[in-house]
Amino acid sequence: MATIGKRARAAARPLATASTETKNRALEAMAKAIQAESETILAANAIDLVHARESGVAASFIDRLTLTPERIEAVAAGIRDIAAFKDPVGDVIAEWDRPNGLHIERVRTPLGVIGVIYESRPNVTADAGALCLKAGNAVILRGGSDSLNSSQAIHACLVQGLKEGGLPEHAIQMVPVADRAAVGAMLSGLDGCIDVIVPRGGKSLVARVQNEARVPVFAHLEGLCHIYVDRSADLEMARRIVVNSKMRRTGICGAAETLLIDRAGAETLLSPLVSALKEAGCEVRATDEIRARVPGLELATEQDWSTEYLDAIIAVALVDGVEGAIEHIGRWSSAHTEAVIAQDQAVADRFFAEIDSAILLHNASTQFADGGEFGMGGEIGIATGKMHARGPVGVEQLTSFKYRVRGTGQVRA
Amino acid sequence: MATIGKRARAAARPLATASTETKNRALEAMAKAIQAESETILAANAIDLVHARESGVAASFIDRLTLTPERIEAVAAGIRDIAAFKDPVGDVIAEWDRPNGLHIERVRTPLGVIGVIYESRPNVTADAGALCLKAGNAVILRGGSDSLNSSQAIHACLVQGLKEGGLPEHAIQMVPVADRAAVGAMLSGLDGCIDVIVPRGGKSLVARVQNEARVPVFAHLEGLCHIYVDRSADLEMARRIVVNSKMRRTGICGAAETLLIDRAGAETLLSPLVSALKEAGCEVRATDEIRARVPGLELATEQDWSTEYLDAIIAVALVDGVEGAIEHIGRWSSAHTEAVIAQDQAVADRFFAEIDSAILLHNASTQFADGGEFGMGGEIGIATGKMHARGPVGVEQLTSFKYRVRGTGQVRA
Repeated sequence: MATIGKRARAAARPLATASTETKNRALEAMAKAIQAESETILAANAIDLVHARESGVAASFIDRLTLTPERIEAVAAGIRDIAAFKDPVGDVIAEWDRPNGLHIERVRTPLGVIGVIYESRPNVTADAGALCLKAGNAVILRGGSDSLNSSQAIHACLVQGLKEGGLPEHAIQMVPVADRAAVGAMLSGLDGCIDVIVPRGGKSLVARVQNEARVPVFAHLEGLCHIYVDRSADLEMARRIVVNSKMRRTGICGAAETLLIDRAGAETLLSPLVSALKEAGCEVRATDEIRARVPGLELATEQDWSTEYLDAIIAVALVDGVEGAIEHIGRWSSAHTEAVIAQDQAVADRFFAEIDSAILLHNASTQFADGGEFGMGGEIGIATGKMHARGPVGVEQLTSFKYRVRGTGQVRA
Repeated sequence: MATIGKRARAAARPLATASTETKNRALEAMAKAIQAESETILAANAIDLVHARESGVAASFIDRLTLTPERIEAVAAGIRDIAAFKDPVGDVIAEWDRPNGLHIERVRTPLGVIGVIYESRPNVTADAGALCLKAGNAVILRGGSDSLNSSQAIHACLVQGLKEGGLPEHAIQMVPVADRAAVGAMLSGLDGCIDVIVPRGGKSLVARVQNEARVPVFAHLEGLCHIYVDRSADLEMARRIVVNSKMRRTGICGAAETLLIDRAGAETLLSPLVSALKEAGCEVRATDEIRARVPGLELATEQDWSTEYLDAIIAVALVDGVEGAIEHIGRWSSAHTEAVIAQDQAVADRFFAEIDSAILLHNASTQFADGGEFGMGGEIGIATGKMHARGPVGVEQLTSFKYRVRGTGQVRA
């Protein structure tokens, strides 16, 4: 692992000054290699699938692990999308002049070396490798043991692309053995050779990374997203947004988990919203106050307010207006994404001002919590920390900055 | 300590939405209180000075600890300067529209709770407290035991200002006993109640904080700053900048520690630059190659390239042009501040592109590495990390951000 760290650090230097054209040429070569080696990748994936089925894992796990010719095409297309993103490196973020004539520029630079720790999805190998490369970073990939053959086959294509593009082949390295010790070594920072860790996977992986990492981590532990429907909401809009937020895809971090309804609007809002959710196939868990008004609902206990279901289940409570919503969210939120549905602008303004989650939405679905939907191109994840990267972590968020100061001989008095 | 943490977290919420006027009113009240209580502060300082003299500390230590009526006036003026800064909270850093009509804003928010760990300078109590408050953050101050009476007297004035301004008095708390256990507790993050730690003090303090902290740290371990003088440099400019960079103040982190001279320009540059430094009272340590040309210099060993003297000593080497300078700096730099003196723009461009220190200067003194000189107002320190805050850490750098997304009923396809 120490060797991998040193090679990554060494590769990061030429990468940091590589031109956009060079990086894009390498990315295009990677996409081509993945298409050309589609058979090889599928064969490797077949081995992983045999092992997985033998060990009797869940169907959802098999689905995440499975590659098809279409999925491999999508992986190649994803790399080309990343090539098409704007290169953030070298961007002047801010510049100003000082009275003494100094001209100061704040300019984007790569972060350096990024460690990505992921689980069973082999496509993360290509996504994460390409995103990090675009931002001028070297990357160390540590995939799950279940997808190791698939990930290695994809990794070989990435390395081929690096070589064809004239970039150091150690720019994208993959830990050859998926043992837990490798994760521990990466979390220690490999003696200063890793600048940031990005975990991609379930809550237990993220929790381990957040607890043990000695380097910064870009991650969210969970997406316990709330929707608050105010008395001033347009009912039709609320219905559409609530159902979409919960049910479009229930397994993603931007899916809503708790619905808060303004007590003062319950008469008109409660029953239609609950019905719409039930019609969409969602289990609704509610407080006794709600169950007295709408029969046939499960009871929501305190545990429900802190549960990220990632499933077709939602917890519903009545709150005293936006203030009550802010209080509930302040207590239970994971600081990922919250939405307010209201026609009253003052309500939305207060919701936006007083809630400090990474993403706040007014009159739109929580499922827009996504780098692509934000127009950032792809993302390596969504962060809920307050440092550096927050919300979708796209190419731009994988950069740092430095100051360039131009003078004409100034000395300090 | 747990109580202090909880109180800080509770205070951070109203602070985050406090208006600029409220914060400035509190800052003005603090400045007034410090002026009004000047006698009390001086009396407390006298006690600290007696203890310090009894324990036989160095004269420089006594100087840092000593308050005078003038220094107390300067502390009050510093708080008023901070009140006059622009309030970053609520600033829209970026905004854009999506094809589906969503309007996305990235808006500045406070970080939350900042822990400041410092040593003998009692004025840090006021500087750090006021800076954190301006950015809407609660702060926990842990001063050194030597200045505890002075710091507590200043802290009492800050609390008085908070009360008069109508802000929570726990917005600026001071750890009442300066024991080492308090530092350890703060470095653990006080159970999620501290968002970032800022150490203010010598290298051993910063090293301990960086090694033990379980929360992000804004700091630099040392400022091993380099100046490279290219063959194309204007000799007079180089002379002025080199002497200022090294000798204006030798004890600050932006002072130059190593001078690199282009071998191809040594004939004209070396002797005048070395003479200028010696005339300014600087000890010059040099390689044998240089000592053969300029007699009477100490030998620079490998140790010198990695030493932050913070004194009137400089290490000098010849390098092969800007490439040689980049190589030397890449090996030895602490990533704080480096300067290039050159008339050849291509040389400066390459220096700027290939060196990834926080601050790079062209034809200007390294001693400009300072938040005030950057026009950021005051700073709480200078950071060399690549995350979040880098270079001078001013009010703006003590903030985070969140996304505000405004829609008209959009759901995700």
